[in-house]
Amino acid sequence: MSPLDKLTAYFEKFPGVGARQAKRFAFHILTLRPEQTHDLANLINGLANSVVECSSCRRFFPAQAQGERLCSICDSTQRDRTKLLVVARDNDITAIERSGVYDGLYFVLGGTIPLLTNNDTTLRLRTPALKAVVNERLPQGLSEIIFGFAVNPDGENTTRYVESAIKELPGAEDLKMSALGRGLSTGSELEYADGETIKSALKNRS
Amino acid sequence: MSPLDKLTAYFEKFPGVGARQAKRFAFHILTLRPEQTHDLANLINGLANSVVECSSCRRFFPAQAQGERLCSICDSTQRDRTKLLVVARDNDITAIERSGVYDGLYFVLGGTIPLLTNNDTTLRLRTPALKAVVNERLPQGLSEIIFGFAVNPDGENTTRYVESAIKELPGAEDLKMSALGRGLSTGSELEYADGETIKSALKNRS
Amino acid sequence: MSPLDKLTAYFEKFPGVGARQAKRFAFHILTLRPEQTHDLANLINGLANSVVECSSCRRFFPAQAQGERLCSICDSTQRDRTKLLVVARDNDITAIERSGVYDGLYFVLGGTIPLLTNNDTTLRLRTPALKAVVNERLPQGLSEIIFGFAVNPDGENTTRYVESAIKELPGAEDLKMSALGRGLSTGSELEYADGETIKSALKNRS
Amino acid sequence: MSPLDKLTAYFEKFPGVGARQAKRFAFHILTLRPEQTHDLANLINGLANSVVECSSCRRFFPAQAQGERLCSICDSTQRDRTKLLVVARDNDITAIERSGVYDGLYFVLGGTIPLLTNNDTTLRLRTPALKAVVNERLPQGLSEIIFGFAVNPDGENTTRYVESAIKELPGAEDLKMSALGRGLSTGSELEYADGETIKSALKNRS
Repeated sequence: MSPLDKLTAYFEKFPGVGARQAKRFAFHILTLRPEQTHDLANLINGLANSVVECSSCRRFFPAQAQGERLCSICDSTQRDRTKLLVVARDNDITAIERSGVYDGLYFVLGGTIPLLTNNDTTLRLRTPALKAVVNERLPQGLSEIIFGFAVNPDGENTTRYVESAIKELPGAEDLKMSALGRGLSTGSELEYADGETIKSALKNRS
Repeated sequence: MSPLDKLTAYFEKFPGVGARQAKRFAFHILTLRPEQTHDLANLINGLANSVVECSSCRRFFPAQAQGERLCSICDSTQRDRTKLLVVARDNDITAIERSGVYDGLYFVLGGTIPLLTNNDTTLRLRTPALKAVVNERLPQGLSEIIFGFAVNPDGENTTRYVESAIKELPGAEDLKMSALGRGLSTGSELEYADGETIKSALKNRS
Repeated sequence: MSPLDKLTAYFEKFPGVGARQAKRFAFHILTLRPEQTHDLANLINGLANSVVECSSCRRFFPAQAQGERLCSICDSTQRDRTKLLVVARDNDITAIERSGVYDGLYFVLGGTIPLLTNNDTTLRLRTPALKAVVNERLPQGLSEIIFGFAVNPDGENTTRYVESAIKELPGAEDLKMSALGRGLSTGSELEYADGETIKSALKNRS
Repeated sequence: MSPLDKLTAYFEKFPGVGARQAKRFAFHILTLRPEQTHDLANLINGLANSVVECSSCRRFFPAQAQGERLCSICDSTQRDRTKLLVVARDNDITAIERSGVYDGLYFVLGGTIPLLTNNDTTLRLRTPALKAVVNERLPQGLSEIIFGFAVNPDGENTTRYVESAIKELPGAEDLKMSALGRGLSTGSELEYADGETIKSALKNRS
């Protein structure tokens, strides 16, 4: 395979990119100036070293001081340490922080667990690491875990799977576990809402 | 204008129909057999007489016994008469009844009130009729009004407008008024949710 | 079935209309004033009598003088009677006349013939009538038939089917038969064009 | 700006990529194994050296033998050297070669010239290089230039601009210049075709 084809193959694995767009990306690289391709290659090469995976919530953050292992949220004394919001990906945290309505801590599971694959241990994502975090925080006052996965079958399966994994922990009996509330989201029209959404919207009326 | 053009003009006023589709509709009429066009014309002509507007909730229902004025929901002794859910259109009631999670009564406002037009009295829809219904029901135990309008600026404006109209009624002080709960609706992903939705989803976690 | 449901069922058979939109149409009828529903019903009822199917090209045109059987195009002395353009539907003629680039006559086949159904005689549409028209026009100087069906498998099948039906006519040997030219249509980009389109575009370069 | 943000900024300049997808790309890089990021970075860094811009048609091709300057098409003795097809981008050549219906030579202009910017010399793309190629080939028998730009205002402007630039060359009087033929492209329906397309489809009937 030629370098052009190899590069195109890498681009095809980028999220949401098809064969034709991957090829356009490769031709786009050819239009860059040498200092730009050099810079881009360096950024890709060094990215893993420029970010640190937070040892607590597992999201990526820019590496700064030597040896720093906690992201600014996990390290903050301003956050409510009794709450832990479990999400699929880093980008979910970005959306929630932008809304400015949550002051607890997070944990990034790394994805969702597809329905019918609960027995495939390779799909447990960071469930073991989450259990360790919960285990460590329980004596420190952690009292509630909130699941923030997508409102679809895989998201619901992930909530069930992770919830029962946490329940196995000694001392988890008193832990409150909840999922983000359902209801009419912005732009929703009642006429097109499904039964589950209407039910939640009625229950959560305010 | 030819009859074909006149008919096309009527079809263009049907909800969601453009010029080209309206013309296709007219040609479709030409493909019907005479007994079909006759039947269709009779149905259109007689529709208003075949349905009755419920004197209470204002939705349309099939006319049956002579003089019947209340729809099956408003007439039922099984429904919780302390709750009144106000919606924009008949179709909203269909969606809620299909979900089977609401046992109170309804009122069809007839649409939503566009933002910035609150002073245009022609846009108040059935607000006066709603006030009359609430006034009549207050002594009979009505204790809560739920607004079920779309989650968009017009829907919210309608909620505000109708809510303050009802508050003017004597005896409305103790009436609980709420809107359907917001949150993540089925299919929603956190990453793409707006701040208002995230806020409600967090508040309504369960 | 209630009249509302019956009417909704008629609307569901309108081209491109689904169950929910059909119901919206029915409710729309309920919002019309009595004189409007009356007018609409009359138009539907009388449409077939207000238009005449041209005895030559078979398109519909507004009935005017008593006994008139030919549309303005077929009746015109300005049109080139050596050419006959066969299309699927009345609307196709509208599009071509709007472009102002064709001066011959037309024939409306009434649809296209789906691939693999050539032996189903109910799907031959107006092929027999077309043969009669061609047969009548051959001695009058008809020299070319152009097929203007969609550029897709059904359209191509229709061209093949109708072409061989016409070839069976005595005297059809010298008739020129062609299909509308393929090529890049407005908005096309070469990169996304299929091989057949590129081939025609190269052949028809000018 | 952090390396993550810098990398995201590069990805945002990739064709057809928005802010959110660019961020997903950056997180995707973080999921790659070190040998993969290294390989990807090397491919990006070395791409410009792994391909050669053909000195004749200007498309990119894999560099092989030392000093090779002509791509396999321009170097082939099987191609018809009397024809030159001018296209906007490398990908256009891929589409045409895939169709297997063209046996002449190519020239990649490097884009199209937006309408109303003909006087901006920075937008002339490779027009000067094209003139040089034509000038060199005229004595060798070049007799026809075909323009293969998109069927839209910019594509048509490019055809006009490049055509008049070539006409300035001494000896270009006898050069035949044409554009790819228009017509109904695969999937087109007559009813939705514009006048220009119908006109060409009628002219190019076959």
